[in-house]
Amino acid sequence: MAFEKKELAAFARTNRDAYEALLRDFVEVPTVSAQPEHKADIARGVELAVETIRAFGGSAEVIETAGNPIIHGVFDSAPGLPTVTVYNHLDVQPASKETEPWDTEPFVFARSGDTYRGRGTTDDKGPALSALFGIKAAREAGVPVNMRVLWELEEEIGSPNFEKGIASAKERLATDSILVSDTIWVSRSRPACPAGLRGMAGFVMTLETGTTDVHSGVTGGVARNPLGELMQLASKMYDATTGKVKIPGFYDDVAKLSKGEKENFLGSGFTAKHFKKATGLKKMRTEDPLEMMTRLWAMPTMEVHGLVGGYTGAGVKTIIPPRAELKVSFRLVPDQKPARIAKLVKEFVAEHAPDVKLTGANSMQPYKAPIDGPLAESVKAAMKFAFGREPVFVREGGSIGAVPSMEKVLRCPVMFIGLSLPEHGYHAPNENFDWGQASGGMVAFAKYFELVAKG
Amino acid sequence: MAFEKKELAAFARTNRDAYEALLRDFVEVPTVSAQPEHKADIARGVELAVETIRAFGGSAEVIETAGNPIIHGVFDSAPGLPTVTVYNHLDVQPASKETEPWDTEPFVFARSGDTYRGRGTTDDKGPALSALFGIKAAREAGVPVNMRVLWELEEEIGSPNFEKGIASAKERLATDSILVSDTIWVSRSRPACPAGLRGMAGFVMTLETGTTDVHSGVTGGVARNPLGELMQLASKMYDATTGKVKIPGFYDDVAKLSKGEKENFLGSGFTAKHFKKATGLKKMRTEDPLEMMTRLWAMPTMEVHGLVGGYTGAGVKTIIPPRAELKVSFRLVPDQKPARIAKLVKEFVAEHAPDVKLTGANSMQPYKAPIDGPLAESVKAAMKFAFGREPVFVREGGSIGAVPSMEKVLRCPVMFIGLSLPEHGYHAPNENFDWGQASGGMVAFAKYFELVAKG
Repeated sequence: MAFEKKELAAFARTNRDAYEALLRDFVEVPTVSAQPEHKADIARGVELAVETIRAFGGSAEVIETAGNPIIHGVFDSAPGLPTVTVYNHLDVQPASKETEPWDTEPFVFARSGDTYRGRGTTDDKGPALSALFGIKAAREAGVPVNMRVLWELEEEIGSPNFEKGIASAKERLATDSILVSDTIWVSRSRPACPAGLRGMAGFVMTLETGTTDVHSGVTGGVARNPLGELMQLASKMYDATTGKVKIPGFYDDVAKLSKGEKENFLGSGFTAKHFKKATGLKKMRTEDPLEMMTRLWAMPTMEVHGLVGGYTGAGVKTIIPPRAELKVSFRLVPDQKPARIAKLVKEFVAEHAPDVKLTGANSMQPYKAPIDGPLAESVKAAMKFAFGREPVFVREGGSIGAVPSMEKVLRCPVMFIGLSLPEHGYHAPNENFDWGQASGGMVAFAKYFELVAKG
Repeated sequence: MAFEKKELAAFARTNRDAYEALLRDFVEVPTVSAQPEHKADIARGVELAVETIRAFGGSAEVIETAGNPIIHGVFDSAPGLPTVTVYNHLDVQPASKETEPWDTEPFVFARSGDTYRGRGTTDDKGPALSALFGIKAAREAGVPVNMRVLWELEEEIGSPNFEKGIASAKERLATDSILVSDTIWVSRSRPACPAGLRGMAGFVMTLETGTTDVHSGVTGGVARNPLGELMQLASKMYDATTGKVKIPGFYDDVAKLSKGEKENFLGSGFTAKHFKKATGLKKMRTEDPLEMMTRLWAMPTMEVHGLVGGYTGAGVKTIIPPRAELKVSFRLVPDQKPARIAKLVKEFVAEHAPDVKLTGANSMQPYKAPIDGPLAESVKAAMKFAFGREPVFVREGGSIGAVPSMEKVLRCPVMFIGLSLPEHGYHAPNENFDWGQASGGMVAFAKYFELVAKG
């Protein structure tokens, strides 16, 4: 047998209502991993995931960790057949209509024509469910392959317990290859697969110099200002205008781009205009496409994400707060190591701001993916089959902490079939997904399983 | 006639219940001038003030301005007598039990023994009511003086409409001298009067580089980060560790302290230990007393009060926000001019961060008070009479925008009888006042009116 395009297209059409109903159920459980007040929602998300796997005819295992559980769904056909495990995550970024410009409630699923809006629609619940329907199509057609899903609930906080979690269930998770569906194309017109991911090292820096707000007239000049000192520390760590990180040794391990990689980038369909439109950015550090792609995919960064403390209401309230907290992260590229970066940051803070307390947050290895061999060829063929064009191999600016962990623990190749588009607004207000990508994803996954079955 | 100490002490005791009931009424109207949502409370505060002046036997005029009204209360005895006008303000700093460590609700009056807690108790409703009871004592004793109160409701936002407001009612406000009661002693053991006030120039700096939160993996390296750029701008403007302002020309007009002034400072009873205890500061830029007093009273400062934008919840959310807003202010000393400082800041921002939008906020002239002549002698004598020791003339680190305005428009001397103590927590959580200072204030004001009547 071999799937025909129109057969899988009909499968998608037939299952559209079921897909949308299920995506609604998933989006409306606010599985925000960064905020402790959502613990009960995480538990509800786990229940929903287990019920869903069972409803699709699989068996489900909940792997407990020190943090949120991991869910393993098994759709095996027979022992001895090749096993493919699809990785997605079911936790989402925080979202609030009060403080962010959402047009609709972030945790209420909103469908408008072919567009699905809500937190998690594209990152990563929509793609997770596309994969599940791809499994359904392959099962109904009797494709001789064992299919599994591995669903994480701590991806958005850097997968702090994932590696230990999968190590604890290593035997049951044994698989021949992994397929990750949590990446973004460069543009809608051309499928793209990552040849690499950036890693990350996140930190919280706190400084406490008092016990209560004080009056800047009564104490100003003598009081230390934790906001000002943390701003100064950040400014010593990087030049916010150019983006250049000033921590000694930071760039030492950055792998240089080859000429071939640059050519691949240039062929990806990336344009400054499209990027600007998709991200809503008004002002950027550069508008040169190759320089942009290099900065996004192949160079590390430092960002400040928020400075907590002081007065943030209307007008100017002239107080000096007792405490401030700066949220910082670095995106890392091959061959940088988060542990070495953490060491450099720690030394830098100890030297320049010894009173600042440094706490490590999210940490993820950067990753380089295989782009040759039978699995890579199956990815290319499945994408071409579903979307009409072969994917380009670019890199991903974001980080997926689970990827290097799975490679390390399960010792198998990790491949990528991503479905998200730049305009879907990863991590942004009005996050959305669409039926074109959702249904194309079902087709691509089903085809991939068939190609892997054929070997 | 001449007041005796025990006579006025008995007056205070007799009126204690009435004072506390009235302070409760005033504190429980949250007249927060910085937050537009308190407009109705401001209106209620005006009504309460008018009713109170009438209840004390005065006539009240509400002077409308482009912002909050000014209240003028007239307690005249006869034409031709000397006229003294007491200035206080009835607006308060923002306060919230949700976000600040208040032990009780800030806008619920809490009495515990001799201590009164609540926003506005010491800054400046408590002192305003002490002055009112001082007027009552003087009237009951038939002191031949015309007494007035001038109550502002925009002091905490830098008195943006006060000068125009009093200019519009200049004739009716004509007075021989003004007495301001909105300053803080150096320590409880020694009354202190300011010989100078710091001025202020406040600014809001905003930078917008996008339209929505973006993912730091997907856009990081290319996206401009408004938080980072504003931090960098602040760090270029001043060294947050030493406090040194780096804007060229900033210190040009700072008047040097004379040897006599330094000696006065050293005799004020100021200690680093007491200052630290009163302010709750754990870490300061210096602990040398003269260096501290010089920094607090005679040197200008820059402070950052809050950076709005980005993620401020738990953990690290790796977004780059589209917009950030930095709240900055400078405390100024004689002979600096806010207009010149605003010009220097504007030029600096234009040069170093041309995309940043600069908006002026609070602006106040620094002030030098008369410390010789009959009024100054009356202040000294009244304070000694009430509190047992002559006041020292120090300076005030804070700013009272109304002071230079009243001097300019009403062309008369502005004197000070302040009642607040460092431990009362100006602008801080658990702001409080106490009966010792409240009753001493009644005595000092009544005595001052008598001394002015005698000429």
